[in-house]
Amino acid sequence: MFKTKKVAKRELILAEAAKLFKDRGYSGTSMRDLAGQVGMEAASMYNHIKSKDELLDTICFRISDTYISQLAEIEATAIPFSEKIKALVRLHIRLMVEDGAAVSVANHDWKYLPEPRLTEFKQARKNYEKGFAALIEAGIAAGEFRPVNVSVALFTVLSAVRWVELWYRPGRGLSAEELENNILTVLLGGLAQR
Amino acid sequence: MFKTKKVAKRELILAEAAKLFKDRGYSGTSMRDLAGQVGMEAASMYNHIKSKDELLDTICFRISDTYISQLAEIEATAIPFSEKIKALVRLHIRLMVEDGAAVSVANHDWKYLPEPRLTEFKQARKNYEKGFAALIEAGIAAGEFRPVNVSVALFTVLSAVRWVELWYRPGRGLSAEELENNILTVLLGGLAQR
Repeated sequence: MFKTKKVAKRELILAEAAKLFKDRGYSGTSMRDLAGQVGMEAASMYNHIKSKDELLDTICFRISDTYISQLAEIEATAIPFSEKIKALVRLHIRLMVEDGAAVSVANHDWKYLPEPRLTEFKQARKNYEKGFAALIEAGIAAGEFRPVNVSVALFTVLSAVRWVELWYRPGRGLSAEELENNILTVLLGGLAQR
Repeated sequence: MFKTKKVAKRELILAEAAKLFKDRGYSGTSMRDLAGQVGMEAASMYNHIKSKDELLDTICFRISDTYISQLAEIEATAIPFSEKIKALVRLHIRLMVEDGAAVSVANHDWKYLPEPRLTEFKQARKNYEKGFAALIEAGIAAGEFRPVNVSVALFTVLSAVRWVELWYRPGRGLSAEELENNILTVLLGGLAQR
């Protein structure tokens, strides 16, 4: 019981930290700001977390671990390549919609990670992009996808899902599912009528 | 002759300013830095330009004027809507490849424009997005495009061309023309084989 409460408190601190980092930037956020937001004394906050660095580390690697583990799962599943790409695109959009602040921090503030975690994070991102590109390449080889330049296809897909952060606001007439379906229609099917 | 030289000098200052603003940010660039880069005394630079603000203004509005005037030209041309979208996408990519520093400044540093120019710039961008969206909408109405959500289609296209800035480096095995063709294949035709 006590342990559950402690975990919940830590999760609350992480959630508020992600929001503050997103709004004010990592370097613009002090532990005092965070304590105020959470409604705790700064000193007692340290019963739950080690440091600002640790918060950033947890937020960034949770997001990258989610991508990496989903990619591994999708790679191991026997479905068409278009379904694999769809599953990854849906994951990106869902994470953005459900955990937007953390995704934003992982997208922008990862550069403040101290070494060796910075290098590990960059490597994880590279591995993810490589794995995603390999799925596109395999889909082309299998005759499922058009023979496009793999890097261009990869970054067109990744940029479309990444920009969702900048312009999509839930509850303004477009549900997360409609957003996913429409982006997938454009990326997989193309704008032009068949 | 003297006038031509003066124009050339002003153009040189603008080009170097765009590079510095891109690399160090607008607020991180001093007129002294710029003078050093151009190889002039700061004092004599003021024979050619009025202020740092004026440089930012010229760089941002040249880019937005280019977009707006091309859009107007394309709107007035009797070609299929897919060709109109293609022409706009090609314009974005070409501007990025040929004048990357200025595009980057117009994308990121426009927020430092002093009023009323800031509002004018935001309005110009909004008008451009509205005009672009209207072309997609008209293409759907004409049966040329799939019936997708217009905002999603617009931002998928704009994000694809915008991210070119972040990952494309000319001369690494992919020409600007190949880049355009591949992005257009994905956006218009879709990744999936027909």
